[in-house]
Amino acid sequence: MKKTDEQKLSGRPGGLLSLDYNNLMSPAVDEAGLSEADLGAIGEALNSARKNVEGQYKKGLLPFMDLPFQSEEVKKYQSLAENLRKFDNVVVLGIGGSALGAKAVFNALRPLNHNSLPASKRAYPRLFVADNVDPEGFGALLENLDIRKTVFNVISKSGATAETMSQFLVVYDRLKRDLGKTSLKDHLIITTDPQSGVLRKIVDRQALMSLPVPPGIGGRFSVMTAVGLAPLAAAGVNIADFLAGAAAAQQESTAEPMKNMAYLFAGLNWFLTTRKKRASLVMMPYADSLGQVADWFGQLWNESLGKGRLLNGKDANAGQTAIKALGATDQHSQLQLYMEGPKDKTICFLRTETFRQNLNIPRLFDEHPELAYLGGHSLGELLNYEQRGTARALAAAGRPNFTMTMPQVTPAALGYLMHMLEVATVVSGCLYKVDPLDQPGVELGKKYAYGLMGRDGFEDFKAAYDDSLRDDPRYILS
Amino acid sequence: MKKTDEQKLSGRPGGLLSLDYNNLMSPAVDEAGLSEADLGAIGEALNSARKNVEGQYKKGLLPFMDLPFQSEEVKKYQSLAENLRKFDNVVVLGIGGSALGAKAVFNALRPLNHNSLPASKRAYPRLFVADNVDPEGFGALLENLDIRKTVFNVISKSGATAETMSQFLVVYDRLKRDLGKTSLKDHLIITTDPQSGVLRKIVDRQALMSLPVPPGIGGRFSVMTAVGLAPLAAAGVNIADFLAGAAAAQQESTAEPMKNMAYLFAGLNWFLTTRKKRASLVMMPYADSLGQVADWFGQLWNESLGKGRLLNGKDANAGQTAIKALGATDQHSQLQLYMEGPKDKTICFLRTETFRQNLNIPRLFDEHPELAYLGGHSLGELLNYEQRGTARALAAAGRPNFTMTMPQVTPAALGYLMHMLEVATVVSGCLYKVDPLDQPGVELGKKYAYGLMGRDGFEDFKAAYDDSLRDDPRYILS
Repeated sequence: MKKTDEQKLSGRPGGLLSLDYNNLMSPAVDEAGLSEADLGAIGEALNSARKNVEGQYKKGLLPFMDLPFQSEEVKKYQSLAENLRKFDNVVVLGIGGSALGAKAVFNALRPLNHNSLPASKRAYPRLFVADNVDPEGFGALLENLDIRKTVFNVISKSGATAETMSQFLVVYDRLKRDLGKTSLKDHLIITTDPQSGVLRKIVDRQALMSLPVPPGIGGRFSVMTAVGLAPLAAAGVNIADFLAGAAAAQQESTAEPMKNMAYLFAGLNWFLTTRKKRASLVMMPYADSLGQVADWFGQLWNESLGKGRLLNGKDANAGQTAIKALGATDQHSQLQLYMEGPKDKTICFLRTETFRQNLNIPRLFDEHPELAYLGGHSLGELLNYEQRGTARALAAAGRPNFTMTMPQVTPAALGYLMHMLEVATVVSGCLYKVDPLDQPGVELGKKYAYGLMGRDGFEDFKAAYDDSLRDDPRYILS
Repeated sequence: MKKTDEQKLSGRPGGLLSLDYNNLMSPAVDEAGLSEADLGAIGEALNSARKNVEGQYKKGLLPFMDLPFQSEEVKKYQSLAENLRKFDNVVVLGIGGSALGAKAVFNALRPLNHNSLPASKRAYPRLFVADNVDPEGFGALLENLDIRKTVFNVISKSGATAETMSQFLVVYDRLKRDLGKTSLKDHLIITTDPQSGVLRKIVDRQALMSLPVPPGIGGRFSVMTAVGLAPLAAAGVNIADFLAGAAAAQQESTAEPMKNMAYLFAGLNWFLTTRKKRASLVMMPYADSLGQVADWFGQLWNESLGKGRLLNGKDANAGQTAIKALGATDQHSQLQLYMEGPKDKTICFLRTETFRQNLNIPRLFDEHPELAYLGGHSLGELLNYEQRGTARALAAAGRPNFTMTMPQVTPAALGYLMHMLEVATVVSGCLYKVDPLDQPGVELGKKYAYGLMGRDGFEDFKAAYDDSLRDDPRYILS
C-alpha cells in the first residue's frame, strides 16, 4: 500500500486506532441514521454512565482496568517464555474466555503460517489452543504433537470447567504414561484461581507449576492476565507493547465521553440497538490477521450484555447480537443479506492501512478489460478498496456502518483495540442497566449435562431431563 | 459412544439424518412454540410451495436438483484425482460459492489434521482453499508450498471475480517465473463457464486444462459440480457416496411436505421468522468436523433469502439471518445471549451419534467430586451430553430449538444434509416469495471498488464515491 495514496484518501493522522462514524449519520444513510439531536442524547446517557463507571472503579469493582499497568507481571511472563523456548509446542487447554483472547492476539501478531513453519524457521514454539472436547479434533491435535517437546497450559479459573478438566485428565494420563510421574511436571503449567478450586488443590498436592487468574477478573476480561499473556509471550508476542497500547486506551477512556472511543463505541451501538432497532452488530475485519478478534469480541459483547434481568431486578431480554464476518470473503456470502435483508444490523468494519507483507498484482492478460484494471495494484490495495466500496454501498442502501482503522496491526494497536472494547462493554452495561460481568444463563445447561453424566448431587436434573423428554415421535423425522 | 446407551436415549432408527423438532413445539417452549394449528398452516403453505417448486423444476429452472445423478461426472473427477496424486498440494483459488462447499466437505470428511500430516502419512494431496485476497494470508500460504508440487484450481464462473482473478494473476506469474511457460500448464486447472467469460477465453487461447460450471448453477448451489467435486476427489473424498446421499435427499424431497425434511426445515423456519419474530437462525454443530457446514449454510441461506424485492416487484426486506456457532465451545461464548438475550433466535443443533475416533477420560483425581463424574466417560459422550443439556436448558428458558442428528458423519450423510438444505432454500424462496437464485445486492459495492481501482467504464462510481465522501471530521475520532 502506497502510504501517500492511502493518506490522501483517508485524510487521517496516525494514532493507534481511529473510528469514523460518518456512515452512521443521517446525511449518509437517511432516516436509518443518527441526527445531531441523537448524538446529544447519547452524550447525556454517556455522561451518566461515566459517573457510574468511575464509581464502580473506585469501589474496586473493575480491576480489569488496572491490568495494563503491570510491568512486574510482564517481566515474569517474558522470563517464563524464555524457559519455554526449549519446547516446540505450547498447547492451551481452555475454553471461552480462557481461549479466545490468546487465539485472537496470536493470529493477529504472529505470522499467519507460524504453526506450519519448520522449527528451524521459528524462534518460538508453535501455539495451539484446544477449546473443544470433540474427540476427533482433540485427537488430531494430540496426534500431531511430539509430547516430549510439548508443554500444556491448563487454564480454568474455577478448576471445574468440564471440557478443560476432561482434556487435562486425558493429557495428564498420557504424560504420566509417556514421560513418568516425575518428568510430567515439566510439561504442565496450571493457570487457575490463586486460592480456591479443585485445580488449585491439585497444584498444591502435586507441586505443579501454576499461574494466577487475579481476583475479580472474569474470563472474557482476562486476556491481559496470565491467561493470555503467558501463552502469548511464549509464542513470541511482544506483551510489553501490547499492554502499553492497552494502557493508552485506559488513559484515554477518562476523556469527555463523546471524544473517547470506548464510550463512543458503547453509546452509538446502544442507541442504534434500542432506538433504531439495530438488534445485531456485525464485526467485519478486512484482514486475515484480525479475523479472530471478531470471535473474541463476540464473546465479550454477547455474554456481557445478553441478560435476562436488569440491575433493578426487573425481567428483560437485553443485548445486541454480535455477528462475525470477514472481508472481502464474506462480500461473497453475507453482503447480499446486509444490503437488502432485514434492517436490523449495524456493520462495524475493522481495517488496517498497511500490511506487513504485500503482493503486487502483475500486469498480465491486460488485453481483457476485466483484468487490465487489476495489474499494477497490490492485493492490499484491492482489499482496502473493496472495504471502501462495500461501506459506501451499504450507506447508499441506507444501512448504517462505521469503520475502525489501524494504521498498522501492531501489538500496541491490538492492545488499544481490545482494552477499548472491554471498557466499551462495561459502559454498555450501564446503558443497558445490566451486570456485564456475570453469566447466569449458562448454568442450567451445565446442570443437565452433569445429571446426564451421572455426577453426584445432580440426580434431580437427570430426572427432570428424563421427565421432560417428550420425544413425541410425530415431531421427529428420520 | 456406546451405541446402546445412545440409542436408548435417542430412541431413533438410523437413516442418514434425522430432525427432531419437539423443542419447537409449545409443550416444550410455551408461547414461543408452535401449535398443531401452526403446523397445519405450515403444511398448507408448503403444499402450495411444492406445486411451485415442481413447476420450476419442470421448466428446467432448478438444474441443481439433477446434480446428484451424474455417474459419468463422478468417474471423470475420480480419474482426474488419480492424476493429481503426484502433487503434494491442491490449492483452490476461489471465493464465496467457489470455496465454501469444498471447505465444508473437506473439513467434515478428511481427518482434521490431514493438511499437517507429512506426505508419507497421506494417500492424497493436501487441500487448501484460498478465499481471501489478504496479502498476509495469501502470502503465508504461498510461502508454505513447494510450487513444483502444487496444482492450482482457479474457480470463477464469470471469470471476472476481482479477488480470484488477482490471485490467478499472482500465481500465473510465479508459475511462469519458476517453472517456465510450458510446464506451468501442468499446474493449472481452470473451472469456469463452459462457453463465455474472460477465463474461458484465456483457457482457449493458452490451451489450459479446464472444467465446466454447468449452466444455470449458481455458486452457492455448486458443491456437486466440478467446483466442489474435483478438488474434493483430489483430496480423497468419496464423491460417489457423497452424491448417493444427495440423490437420496432429492428423491425424498418429493414426499408429502410435512414428512419431508427439506420442506419441513423450510416451513418451520419460515413460520418462526415471519410469525414468531425469530429473525435469526443459529446453526450450531456439535462436532469439529461439521463446523464449516455452518459457514457454507450461512451463504446458502443468507444470500438466497436476504432480498430487497419480492417476486411481484414489491419492495421488501426479506430473509432470516443464519449465524454460525460451534458446540461445546460457544456454550462458553454465545449461550448466555441465546438463553437470556433478545427473543429473536431459533437454534438448530447439528450432531453426530458416533465419532470416528474417541478418547476416554481416565479416572484420575477422583477424590474430587468436580472431577470424579468425568472419568469413565469418553469425550464424545461429554460433547453429546452437553448438546442435550443445552437443548433442554434452552427449551426450559422458552427458546425454540431443534436438532438434526447424523448417526455417523459419512460422505452419504453429508451429501444428504447439503442437498436437503439446498432444496429447503429453494422451498423457502417460494415461502418468502423471493428469487433464491440471484444476488443483486452485491453489485453496487463492486462497482465502487472498480471505480476506486481505476477500471475503465467505472469513472462515474469513482466520482460518486468522491462526492459522497463527507468525512465530516466531527464524526471521526482518532
